[in-house]
Amino acid sequence: MASENPTIEVEELKRLCSAVFERAGASAQGAAACVQILVEAEMMGISTHGAVRVPDYARRLRSGGIDAKALPVLERRAPSLALVDGKNALGPLVGTRALEAAIELARHTGIAYVGCRRSNHFGAIAPYAYEACKAGFAMLAGTNASTTMPPWGGAALRLGNNPLCIAAPGELGAHFILDMAMSVAARGKIRAALKAGKPIPEGWAADKGGRPTTDPAAALEGFLLPFGAHKGSGLSMAVDLLSGVLSGARFLTDVVSWVDNATEPQSVGHFFLLLDPARLVGREAYAAEMARFRKLIKDTPAADPAQPVMLPGERELARRVRALKEGVSLPAALLAELRALA
Amino acid sequence: MASENPTIEVEELKRLCSAVFERAGASAQGAAACVQILVEAEMMGISTHGAVRVPDYARRLRSGGIDAKALPVLERRAPSLALVDGKNALGPLVGTRALEAAIELARHTGIAYVGCRRSNHFGAIAPYAYEACKAGFAMLAGTNASTTMPPWGGAALRLGNNPLCIAAPGELGAHFILDMAMSVAARGKIRAALKAGKPIPEGWAADKGGRPTTDPAAALEGFLLPFGAHKGSGLSMAVDLLSGVLSGARFLTDVVSWVDNATEPQSVGHFFLLLDPARLVGREAYAAEMARFRKLIKDTPAADPAQPVMLPGERELARRVRALKEGVSLPAALLAELRALA
Repeated sequence: MASENPTIEVEELKRLCSAVFERAGASAQGAAACVQILVEAEMMGISTHGAVRVPDYARRLRSGGIDAKALPVLERRAPSLALVDGKNALGPLVGTRALEAAIELARHTGIAYVGCRRSNHFGAIAPYAYEACKAGFAMLAGTNASTTMPPWGGAALRLGNNPLCIAAPGELGAHFILDMAMSVAARGKIRAALKAGKPIPEGWAADKGGRPTTDPAAALEGFLLPFGAHKGSGLSMAVDLLSGVLSGARFLTDVVSWVDNATEPQSVGHFFLLLDPARLVGREAYAAEMARFRKLIKDTPAADPAQPVMLPGERELARRVRALKEGVSLPAALLAELRALA
Repeated sequence: MASENPTIEVEELKRLCSAVFERAGASAQGAAACVQILVEAEMMGISTHGAVRVPDYARRLRSGGIDAKALPVLERRAPSLALVDGKNALGPLVGTRALEAAIELARHTGIAYVGCRRSNHFGAIAPYAYEACKAGFAMLAGTNASTTMPPWGGAALRLGNNPLCIAAPGELGAHFILDMAMSVAARGKIRAALKAGKPIPEGWAADKGGRPTTDPAAALEGFLLPFGAHKGSGLSMAVDLLSGVLSGARFLTDVVSWVDNATEPQSVGHFFLLLDPARLVGREAYAAEMARFRKLIKDTPAADPAQPVMLPGERELARRVRALKEGVSLPAALLAELRALA
């Protein structure tokens, strides 16, 4: 079945995606940022936020929902604080600009918060975390999103799936990267089930009336459920406060849906919070303690000996290394679509 | 049954607890900090981290596990970064000193990270969050703890219950305070079930061999399970990185158990991360947006009309207001124990 999921080299995939973005009218910077973030996610095996999003982004560029030529503007607030006005540019362009600024501020002061407003879907957070870790910083980052969940005890959509990422650098690229959304399951997985004509597991989602459902179509019309009940619900709100309220972005029901509204700016908010471990405990002490932390986790006896205990991000980083050598597999239909769009 | 849970005025409870700490040898500052944090938790209805801990802390002062007279020492690292060497002082003394320092730094720079090492159990985080919010700051804070959970997929204790708190100030004391531990249920609730001779719900804990159990005694010998499976497990590690590794404290299995070892310092780590919303988006804009955020959540149609949707911390803050007027109810046995210890 090799023809179903052909392999493509990373550099070739980047050229292909870059051509799609340029054909859709994106600025050179915008195209480069999108390729970086989306292809990195694909390499890490986060395929719901990888190449599959390229045609999606291109459609939104064409519909005018994203300003293809806009460039985000940085506003410094204090030596360790900045905001980015995204100007409705491509989300990954806003995100990479903000992360760049946060790294610059944190290099000087050891800490930085950068909040973004007027942005769009900015991809998975793990690729940003990889860059922050490569530069030597621990990172907390998050984004809000249009609503897909009710708050705990509620029967109407109010919360986005608002992913939160917490990362810390390790030696030789062995970074800790926890990148998690607040729903039990990602919306993309429900879309995939719909496409495959399969039911979804119980507990993932409720239908429009708040009734639990295993029908992916009904789930997409209804809402995802937060993980950990009131805890996931509260965490989604907390990420929205950090990404939306503190950055001056829209939040909760004010964020515009990517899916339902092709032309209006989403006005998504993101945040990046960086800390320099070297400034706190010293470079060498940090490296040694982090290595010990990894070892203590990885040496845990496994419940199933065939499945050793892993750190968050470990699987993704191993896939990334493999992708650099062997390329990535994509569904033939997606590859054909990318080639047609390029 | 009023005699089972007599009511005591807050000021009287504070005097009583203060006397217990002084009789146990605590410094005046240590006693004051413990009374503040533990009685505030009791007022908020977080009774697992309230007055019940006072005899517990007093025992550990007497056994020498905590240095009763020690005072934590602040180490500035940069205009927005500091560490606190807890010197094995009372945890709430270390925590309040660190929060004070974080507020001072954030007043100047708009942001602060303060990490603590060589500390002890520091109570619930919500009382610290209340202080940070009162001073106008959004806060992320956490602590590590001795191990009670395996990492996801593991069959041995490696993770503490490592609570994470995210808070943001609201007008007229209507703060957002999410204070959550990483286990499905708190260890204190399992202890309470044991005391009451009741089984615990399924999914809360596993026994020593990793098998799910509803027997509180077996659960206390085994381990709590993280909420949200791999997500809660990853979040516990992330809080440990922020509290333990970045602060130079102990972490994972190196944190000493309060219960099993009465004389050795715990060497717990905490962190406080503060952000000034006024420096980011302006005081008035922030207040207006935060009020809108609250309203959007509170106006959500409720799944059960008898249970309106609430914000994290809302119930606790309402209880706090009531406690100031009406006092708090404590089990008669606990009150008698406090009076005997005073």
